[in-house]
Parts: sequence; structure tokens; C-alpha cells
Amino acid sequence: MALRWTSVLLLIQLSGYFRSGTCGKVLVWPTDYSHWMNMKIILDELVQRGHEVTVLASSASVLIDPSKTSAIKFEVFPTSLSKDDFDDFAMKLLHRVIYDLPKDTFWSPVSQIEEIMWGFSEVMIKVCKDAVLNKKLMTKLQESKFDVLLADGVGPCADLLAEILKTPLVYSLRCSGGYTIEKHSGGLLFPPSYVPVVTSEFSDKMTFMERVKNMIYVLYYDFWFQAYDMKKWDQFYLEVLGRPTTFYETMKKADMWLIRTYWDFDFPRPLLPNFDFIGGHHCKPSKPLPEDMEDFVQSSGENGVVVFSLGSLISNMTEERANVIASALAVLYCAFLILFLKLLMNNFAEIYSNLGHPKTKAFITHGGINGIYEAIYHGVPMVGIPLFWDQPDNIVHMKAKGAAVRLDFNTMSSTDLLNALKTVINDPLYKENAMKLSRIQHDQPTKPLDRAVFWIEYVMRHKGAKHLRVAAHDLTWFQYHSLDVIGFLLACVATAIFIITKCCLFFCRMFTSAEKKKKRE
Amino acid sequence: MALRWTSVLLLIQLSGYFRSGTCGKVLVWPTDYSHWMNMKIILDELVQRGHEVTVLASSASVLIDPSKTSAIKFEVFPTSLSKDDFDDFAMKLLHRVIYDLPKDTFWSPVSQIEEIMWGFSEVMIKVCKDAVLNKKLMTKLQESKFDVLLADGVGPCADLLAEILKTPLVYSLRCSGGYTIEKHSGGLLFPPSYVPVVTSEFSDKMTFMERVKNMIYVLYYDFWFQAYDMKKWDQFYLEVLGRPTTFYETMKKADMWLIRTYWDFDFPRPLLPNFDFIGGHHCKPSKPLPEDMEDFVQSSGENGVVVFSLGSLISNMTEERANVIASALAVLYCAFLILFLKLLMNNFAEIYSNLGHPKTKAFITHGGINGIYEAIYHGVPMVGIPLFWDQPDNIVHMKAKGAAVRLDFNTMSSTDLLNALKTVINDPLYKENAMKLSRIQHDQPTKPLDRAVFWIEYVMRHKGAKHLRVAAHDLTWFQYHSLDVIGFLLACVATAIFIITKCCLFFCRMFTSAEKKKKRE
Repeated sequence: MALRWTSVLLLIQLSGYFRSGTCGKVLVWPTDYSHWMNMKIILDELVQRGHEVTVLASSASVLIDPSKTSAIKFEVFPTSLSKDDFDDFAMKLLHRVIYDLPKDTFWSPVSQIEEIMWGFSEVMIKVCKDAVLNKKLMTKLQESKFDVLLADGVGPCADLLAEILKTPLVYSLRCSGGYTIEKHSGGLLFPPSYVPVVTSEFSDKMTFMERVKNMIYVLYYDFWFQAYDMKKWDQFYLEVLGRPTTFYETMKKADMWLIRTYWDFDFPRPLLPNFDFIGGHHCKPSKPLPEDMEDFVQSSGENGVVVFSLGSLISNMTEERANVIASALAVLYCAFLILFLKLLMNNFAEIYSNLGHPKTKAFITHGGINGIYEAIYHGVPMVGIPLFWDQPDNIVHMKAKGAAVRLDFNTMSSTDLLNALKTVINDPLYKENAMKLSRIQHDQPTKPLDRAVFWIEYVMRHKGAKHLRVAAHDLTWFQYHSLDVIGFLLACVATAIFIITKCCLFFCRMFTSAEKKKKRE
Repeated sequence: MALRWTSVLLLIQLSGYFRSGTCGKVLVWPTDYSHWMNMKIILDELVQRGHEVTVLASSASVLIDPSKTSAIKFEVFPTSLSKDDFDDFAMKLLHRVIYDLPKDTFWSPVSQIEEIMWGFSEVMIKVCKDAVLNKKLMTKLQESKFDVLLADGVGPCADLLAEILKTPLVYSLRCSGGYTIEKHSGGLLFPPSYVPVVTSEFSDKMTFMERVKNMIYVLYYDFWFQAYDMKKWDQFYLEVLGRPTTFYETMKKADMWLIRTYWDFDFPRPLLPNFDFIGGHHCKPSKPLPEDMEDFVQSSGENGVVVFSLGSLISNMTEERANVIASALAVLYCAFLILFLKLLMNNFAEIYSNLGHPKTKAFITHGGINGIYEAIYHGVPMVGIPLFWDQPDNIVHMKAKGAAVRLDFNTMSSTDLLNALKTVINDPLYKENAMKLSRIQHDQPTKPLDRAVFWIEYVMRHKGAKHLRVAAHDLTWFQYHSLDVIGFLLACVATAIFIITKCCLFFCRMFTSAEKKKKRE
């Protein structure tokens, strides 16, 4: 408890320090669904510290709902898509990814990501155009003179906005497909020998064949992977900025990257001074449950409860799969508290509050990073049923750290689910490991949310954070990899060898011809 | 001022948190001279937070003086060297490095470092043997059951002690020769295209030829550089541990690395989760000067004062060089406060207090990291007269950031020194840049000293910090660089090409022979 008190104190101090200067104006370019829920925690904190926060949202936003927040300002711009179009499109795409795309092949994780990204690319470019080409909107934003643009780094457009509005840029990001954005725009290093590429489903301790596969993934992501329909985006960027560029190039502009993981969840890997790892920033100590829920939980007696949630995007589960899960849960000996996140969508902190309840024995999760961090924060072992994107990888991480059992959503039977639950509840090792992760999460010099807000304020105070950016950003790719230097040195060595050989041959010939002459004489 | 108050509050909280558990026992393996002055700041803080700190010092220690500190315990072990032997040896070695070794050639910085390291290696192995082979001492230390071993990472022996005593290990380190220890033991990455190797005297923005030179340095440090007389050390390690190892290998054991720089001084470069950058942790707000000194400073009127110090090792300056400096200072129009650090050796915080005095206009420094950080902390522009080791590099950093002018100790004239001083005092850009660095230094989520102590306590709490170490430590060098994987993939490609070619040739032959048959028929 001492630690929590600590953090609250620090929070007051930081905001006090900032206020002694001036309060900042923050523009936000969010991403919808769980990304928004996550971002909103940071925005609420910024507002509480006296900053003026304006969210730039399209009229088609699903969860980004101006009516549900009072302190955050919204700038809603019209877009040709309707809310239902957008939600339908997202649900159909995910249904296809979860049920229809091939699984368990070497390329399936990558093709899944490409499928999702290309799908969203279509929608995103439409929304981005509707924002950026809306002259009235842009003029208004320019006149507002924002101190910083905060954006979810999962897609383009924020970089373009920052360029137009000439504001420093801070990204919040879980990860991009194959870490391509972190690598090509952020300058992060991912040595393939011990950093498994996201979606590889390997841990940091890889066998030889896993390292071979990881290398093939890395090569694929580096040379073939196209997150978006690049031609369209390049053309659009050229149109707006009046010069040819790519979004990897414009995203390099970012001053600070707030990565939504930490070393309890992630395997240690190289970072850079302008990257901070704020995983679990959205977690808070549990609030008391509503009375009826508390009664239900208490009635479970010594057996305790299990929290179940498959995330914000699984509303259209097939009946067959739902039955498998329901029949497993029905036969279990302990009381259950089954929560579909969809039902309480805008209140996800409240749902996860159950994880902090002393009676909670396990968490059945799809492996979204938000939920996983709640489980880590509260030290609850997990049964992971990953669906798509980074979720299989997330569960692999928790499995490698001994805090989760993994199941396959499409093929698992009721018995599988039952056995997995029994394992994580009855084997004390799972609880121990989950508690160990929890201790790591709680034991940081500063709380993740405080650091997230600190760096956003920092970028405002210093009008960017150029002094934290590596000089690598100013190098071309062949300079960065020292290919010109290596080429030059090899050329020098080759020339030296050539000259020495020539000299040797010349002297040899001199010597032999001299000998011949002698013999003749 | 709000920021300082902040940090003090945090300090109370952390120690409160730790005390709610238990207080720790810290064993310290220090390095002498300025390294000790620096380390002592951390030890004092640890003591203040209730930890039991025991310094393991040889009887030949020069500045590590048990009589001058009360709260820190000392375990002094006898060694065949005397205090005077040690100091004489150090002074002679440095005299040779500063005055006699060739300067300004491509290899001179490297050979300088090798000269120093080999010299100290002789002494260090003697002291190390006298500690480690002292059975009574080792038994006593083993029985004391220390929670952590804190050591200066500049040399070997601490790793051996940690191995024998089975304690977690935390290093404090400015840098090793060519970053070899950070790279080979710590696992840090130093891309040669934008990270100038220490002693290269390049900034992070290198020309093509500078990048070529940097690459040559890197290759030299990677493949030829021998920090110590390795045969002797390897033999000694084998003797003690009973198995062949190297000190790069045993140093890998370190749980946490506290690097004594930060991004105000250093150029941004990749780091790892178990590295923290605590540069300037020894700096404190200035205390009022003693009355006579204050009178002297005030008498300078509007002109202000300049602080002068060439560090703790320059007591044997040649008369000729001393005259050059004195005559320059004599003609200057403003009052001078000339302080030789040697005179007030154990009180270096008091000397540097002058840097925080509002009348201080500039700092003439040899470029030791301690002094540079005091200047950064207080925002004072510098005239750098580097002598050896990392000092030229340190001044290059400050010059690149626009806060210093560099002079050559051996060749500068009085006029050079005078002009340099006039430049940094009269050109407002130098003061501006120094103030900018100062703002960066003061604007961190947690104070460097608090972080240093936090991580030491952290390692005690978690009995190490294995979860922050990259898996790279378990790989061989060819696995680490993926050479086996690349070899395998190339072999696969070669085999595929071979088989395809063979098949093509086979079918070609089939086809042509079939045609010939046809023609014959």
C-alpha cells in the first residue's frame, strides 16, 4: 500500500511543477475500440492536471463518444462513412480473420496482419482525407496553436497532421506489424537472434530452427511487408505536402514513443532514449464491486470466481464456439462471473476491477494487451484463447513467464478449457508467477501513467525532444548499416592486395629474368 | 524550485517503501580517486535511507579514507603495496600519458588507454589477489550475507567477488575503453554509423571519413584491444573459480548497470532495460560559500568569477604549463577564483558549489565527467583543457552541444586561453546552450541519485534483476550475430539453386536428345 500512496504524491508534484509554467494544449488523434479506452486513461489524467485536451474524431467513430465525457473537448469532423458502416466493416473483417483465414501455417500470422491492415487502410485513408482536406477544420486547428499532438501509432495520418500543424508529436503504441514502424520510423533495433518478431509466437529463448524462422519473418517484414496500400498513401501525402515522402519518413518526426508494454510482459530488448515503456498505465487499484455483484462473488465461498472476457471485438461469436465455452463453464465447481466486455464497453476499468477481487482465481482472456495488463497488475493467472493480431504473441509471453495456459479458439473442446482452468487454479506455480509479474509491475521508480503524462508535458515544455532522438534518423539506410563504409574499407583492402600482388609479381619477374640473363651469360 | 522539492518528497517515499520490508546490506568494491568521490555520494544516500554499507578497501587506498566517514563501515584488508607506492605509481603513469606519449595521431587515444589500463592492471591484480585469496576476509564477508555488491565497473575483480559471495551485482560506470565492457558484458549495441566510440572524439553527426575512422576504431576495440594483461587475469580467475572463464564472461553476471551520463551530455544511443543513465547524480544545489570566499566573489562586481579546476590527478603539472595558465588568468579583467581540486580533495561538492554561484561566468575544466556534470547542472559554459582518457571526448560532447570551447593542454598559449574565456563569456550562445543542458538535466521523471538508489534497492528486493536482462547473454557470439542462421539460409538457397540448375540441365538434355532422335528418325 505504501507504494500506491507514493505514486499519488508524485502525481501532485508533477502537475504542480508544470502549472508553475503554463498549461498545455493537447490535440489527440485516436484509434477506435480498445485503443481508445486505453488512450482515454491518459487523456483523463492530462485533463486532471489542468491541460486542455481536444480529441479530433470522425463522425463515424464507434467508441469515441463525445456525449460520454465532459472534461475532454471534441472536434468531430464529418466523414462519408456512417458509424454503422464502420462497425459493420470492422466486425466483418474480424470475423473473416478469426474464422475463415487459414491457421497454424508458417505464414498465417503475417497474412492475417496484412489482411487486417489492408482492410483498415481503406477506411483510414478515407477518414484521413476527410480530416486533412477539410480546410475549415485545418484552419481552426492551426489557429488553436496546439503544443503537442498525441496519437495512437498504429496507423498513419497523425504524422501528416503534425506536419501540417507544425506541432511536436507523441505516439502511444503497443506494436506495429512486425515492429516495422518502431524499426523504420522509431530507429529501434531488433536483433533477430533474441528478439522474436511480433506474431512469430516465439519467446526470447529460441531454438536454432525458431531463430531461422524468426529471421525469415524479419526478412519478410523488412523487404516484402506492406502494411498499407502504399501507392494510395504516397500519392495522398504528395498531394498534401507537395513533396514525395513515405509515412515511415514522416513518422520519424515523432519526438516521443510511449510503448504500452513493460518488462513484466515483454522480453527485454534494446530501446532508445525517446522510448518509454508504459505498459499497464491504465491499471488502477480495484474499486468495490456493485452490491449485487459483490453478493454473487461472495456466494462462491472458498472456490472463488473466474473472470471471463474475450475483448471488445468478439460480439459476433459463432453459436458453436459459444456453446463450447458455456458448457465448460457450466460444469465447473466454482461460481462464475461471466462478463462480455461488449456489454459494459465504456466502462472497462469497472469490469477489470473484478480481477483485483481477492476471490478471483483466474482470468479467461483473448489476450488483448489491456486485459493482460490488468491480470498482471492484480497478479491473476490466465487461460489465454487468442483470436488475432498480437493476441497469440501476448499469450505466448505470459505462457513463457509461467502465468498462463494457452488454448486454440477454433479447435478447443469444453474439456480443454476445463482442464486449462483447473491447471492454472490448482497448480500454485501459476499464481506465484502471476504474483511475481505483479510485483515487477508495481516496483518502478515512477508509475507508468505518471511517466506517460510526464513525457507528454516534457515534449510541450521543450517544444519537442530532439535531444533524445538518435542521429540515425538523418542517415540513409546504407549509411545507417555502414554499407558505404564497409564497401570503402573492402575496396581499400582489395586495392592494397592488388598493389602488393602486382609488386610481388613484378619483383619476381625481375628476379627470374635477371637469373635467366645470368644463366645465358 | 518546485522540481527540487518534488524530488525530496519522492526520496522519503521510496525509503519508506523499502523500510516497510527490510533494510539491506550493501558491499562496495570501489575505485580510487574521482571514482570514489562519485561513488561516495551514492553510499551516503544509501546510509541515509537506513542501509548498512560496507566498503571493501585495500590498505593502499589513497582517497578512500575510513577516518573521514563515520556512517559507512570499512573492511580494510592488507596489501603488499603502500599508500605512497600506489599514489606515486598513479602519478607517474599519468605524467607519462599526459606529457610523454605522442598526441594527435590516429592511434594515440587508443594507445593512451591501453597504456593506462595495462599499468593499472598490474596494481589491480595484486590488490584483487590480496582480497580474494585472503581466506579469513572471504569467510567474514560470506558470513555477513550481503544483499548486493555495488562496484565501479571500470575494472575486474568485483565480478569475481560477486561470484564467490553469491550476491547480485550492480555496476556504476562512466565508460570502459572503447565501450568494450558495455558491449561484451552488458550486451549494449553501438551502431558504428551514429555512435562514436569513446576516445574517437567524434560527435554523433559524422562525415563519411569520420565514419570510416569510427569503424576502424570499433574493429580495433572488438578484435585487438586488450584492456588488461589477459593471460594473468585468466589464470587467476581459473585458480579461484576452478573453471576457465574470462572477465567479460563473469561481468555478464551484473544485474544492473548505472551509467554516469545522461542525454544532456551524451549523444542518444541504444540502451537496454537493465541500464539506467544517472549522469549528474552527485550534483546538488549550491550551499552558501564560506564568508571569506563569498567576500572575494562579491568583490568581482559585475565582471563575475571563473572557476578553474584540472581535476584530482593533476598535482604534478610542469612549471611551464602552469605559467601559461597563470599568465593568462593574470591579465583577465574579471576577478578569479582559482581552485585546485587537490587542495580540497575530499570536499569536491564544496568546490563545485562555486559553479552554482550567480556570479560564476565560466568554468575552466580538464573535462572529467564529475566537473562537467556540475557545470551542466548549474548551466555554466566551459573552457575545456582535456588531459587523458575520456576527457577529450567529454569536451567534444560539450563543444558539439555548443556549451564549451576546447584547448590543447600541451600546445595552448596564454592568449589561446584568454580568447577561449572571452568567447564563452561574451558570446551569449554558450550560456544559452549551457542553460538548455541544465534544463534537460533537471527535467527528469526522477532525480538521478534517487534512481541510482532505487535500482540498488530494487536488486536487493528482487534478489537480482534477471527479468531485465536480455536473452543475448545466453547466446554464443555467432548465435548472437545470427551467423549460424545466415549460413544455414545461404546453404538452403545454394542447394535450391543447385537442384534447380541440375533439373533444368537434365530436362534440357532430355529435350535436346529427344530432338536429335527425332531428327535422326
